[in-house]
Amino acid sequence: MALSEFTLINQYFNKQVDAAFPAKLGIGDDCALIDVPPNMELAVSTDTLVERVHFLANSDPHLLGYKSLAVNLSDLSAMGAKPAWVSLALTLPEANEHWIKAFSKGFLLLAQSHSMQLIGGDTTQGPLSISVTVMGLLPKGKALKRSGASVGDGVYLSGNIGSAGLGLIKAQQMASDSSDEDLVQYLKPMPNIDLGEQLLTRASACIDVSDGLAADLSHILNASGVAARVFHKNVPMTEGVKQHIKQLDDELWPYSTGDDYQLCFTLPKALTKDKKIMGLVEKNIITHIGEIEAGKGLIVVMSDGSEKTINKGFQHFNKGPIETVHDK
Amino acid sequence: MALSEFTLINQYFNKQVDAAFPAKLGIGDDCALIDVPPNMELAVSTDTLVERVHFLANSDPHLLGYKSLAVNLSDLSAMGAKPAWVSLALTLPEANEHWIKAFSKGFLLLAQSHSMQLIGGDTTQGPLSISVTVMGLLPKGKALKRSGASVGDGVYLSGNIGSAGLGLIKAQQMASDSSDEDLVQYLKPMPNIDLGEQLLTRASACIDVSDGLAADLSHILNASGVAARVFHKNVPMTEGVKQHIKQLDDELWPYSTGDDYQLCFTLPKALTKDKKIMGLVEKNIITHIGEIEAGKGLIVVMSDGSEKTINKGFQHFNKGPIETVHDK
Repeated sequence: MALSEFTLINQYFNKQVDAAFPAKLGIGDDCALIDVPPNMELAVSTDTLVERVHFLANSDPHLLGYKSLAVNLSDLSAMGAKPAWVSLALTLPEANEHWIKAFSKGFLLLAQSHSMQLIGGDTTQGPLSISVTVMGLLPKGKALKRSGASVGDGVYLSGNIGSAGLGLIKAQQMASDSSDEDLVQYLKPMPNIDLGEQLLTRASACIDVSDGLAADLSHILNASGVAARVFHKNVPMTEGVKQHIKQLDDELWPYSTGDDYQLCFTLPKALTKDKKIMGLVEKNIITHIGEIEAGKGLIVVMSDGSEKTINKGFQHFNKGPIETVHDK
Repeated sequence: MALSEFTLINQYFNKQVDAAFPAKLGIGDDCALIDVPPNMELAVSTDTLVERVHFLANSDPHLLGYKSLAVNLSDLSAMGAKPAWVSLALTLPEANEHWIKAFSKGFLLLAQSHSMQLIGGDTTQGPLSISVTVMGLLPKGKALKRSGASVGDGVYLSGNIGSAGLGLIKAQQMASDSSDEDLVQYLKPMPNIDLGEQLLTRASACIDVSDGLAADLSHILNASGVAARVFHKNVPMTEGVKQHIKQLDDELWPYSTGDDYQLCFTLPKALTKDKKIMGLVEKNIITHIGEIEAGKGLIVVMSDGSEKTINKGFQHFNKGPIETVHDK
């Protein structure tokens, strides 16, 4: 079924939503028009997913629609921003109505669950690629940055690491059913929007872990001019990941796998007793995995007590298509 | 020369600029942070250029950097917005330093000429594609929309039509030197930012002509619920285009070629005597090409006095790679 570009956009993407911050002008003119409320500032982030690089060929379009927005929401969560608007640049080899319908459903369901409005974008023909720009709102001057970690702060992590990396391997091998927790973590990461907002007045620094904990925590350390010591025994991992690193005989493996989309953040010591923080720790939503120290670099204290310094992660131009980066 | 993603971004894109509206946080965190001045609203637009669809394989990277921003600035100009910030999602087959250096130069030179700040984006590996999101500022409630044209308004056009379409043919044939006016129009369109701002309190409706005058003026007509009569003899075209349509024996050809990036707008009759407008007309920056009428559709009065109704333009999914769409 051949559909024209305008019909496609209108039919599947231009739907009424219950937006938290309705645009003054949405899809259908040369630009969208939005109003930033007084005392708020705008957080903007862009992430692109390319077929065979960020996702496997013939991926489920519904899951892809979900994930292409989720990875962008993850960036908003890392600043503590409230999602408001999103723009979608979709490049497709052909106007396959079934694909577009499923993709738009996955994308819009997640947008709606955050009362977020799709305000525009572009639909073009070409190799499958999805570039999303999200816009969120923050009280002026309150954003969580990478640069605020101080010596003595605790290092915290939401969720676990390595699970999505293992999920990718399972997806490539088609060896698991769709309920496998690692596969789900890879296919359907949950952006930590609520957590980010709760950290807004608490965390001293924050980042989303998309390129591996080693690389992303290193960004905090470099921006803040500090070092960190992380205790491997404290870092949460799924049973699958624990088995996998035993097979590999490499505990550092989950520190450089991509696609975790967890928050890594630092908290001043005084906040260890903060009720909200204690509640999040008790519910295993966040885990205290290490400490900020004076100096440079990331030290991981392995389970045998030895120490390893690592600081590299996912780098697009140093790798071939779909491959987890692994530093030894 | 192999460069890592972070080095690439830092080296070529993260440059200090004299921004009209400096971001509170630019490249280098999970999100950029921007402040929208009070009494202003934000205009946002996204456009993607894909190799072999929107530009020829092996295009000059400097010109491509320029054009990928220019086509987006054209959308801001159509709303009358002042350029402020831009986000760049760049997908490249390989980290070719020469290419990236030239591309960034073309992109940033144009950004700087509009005191615009590059606030973030994403660099990924994959088939060459460039997705740009521009953000501009407007006095609240003053944006030029597609929907304000009224019966009796004049229809105006900046520059000319068909020249970029002919430039594309010349680029494909490699038949012209780099000073050919049609080739220049195709490779280096000039966004009408100043004109857009001047129209802000004057035009009743405005659009940028990117998919052909027929399709884009039709968007104004549909959004405004009116018809238009355009007089072919009044529509500016280059000598090259005039010859080309003579060869084709098809006066309608330039009405559905892409890439013009001109402004088409409507002006209330009272403004015919506006000093600013008269000055623009005298300098041939804008031309009065027709009238808004009651009814539906676009009528073109051909040079022999016959009338043709046309309303179609460039539609990505109805065409193969690089091909000018031509309706007869």
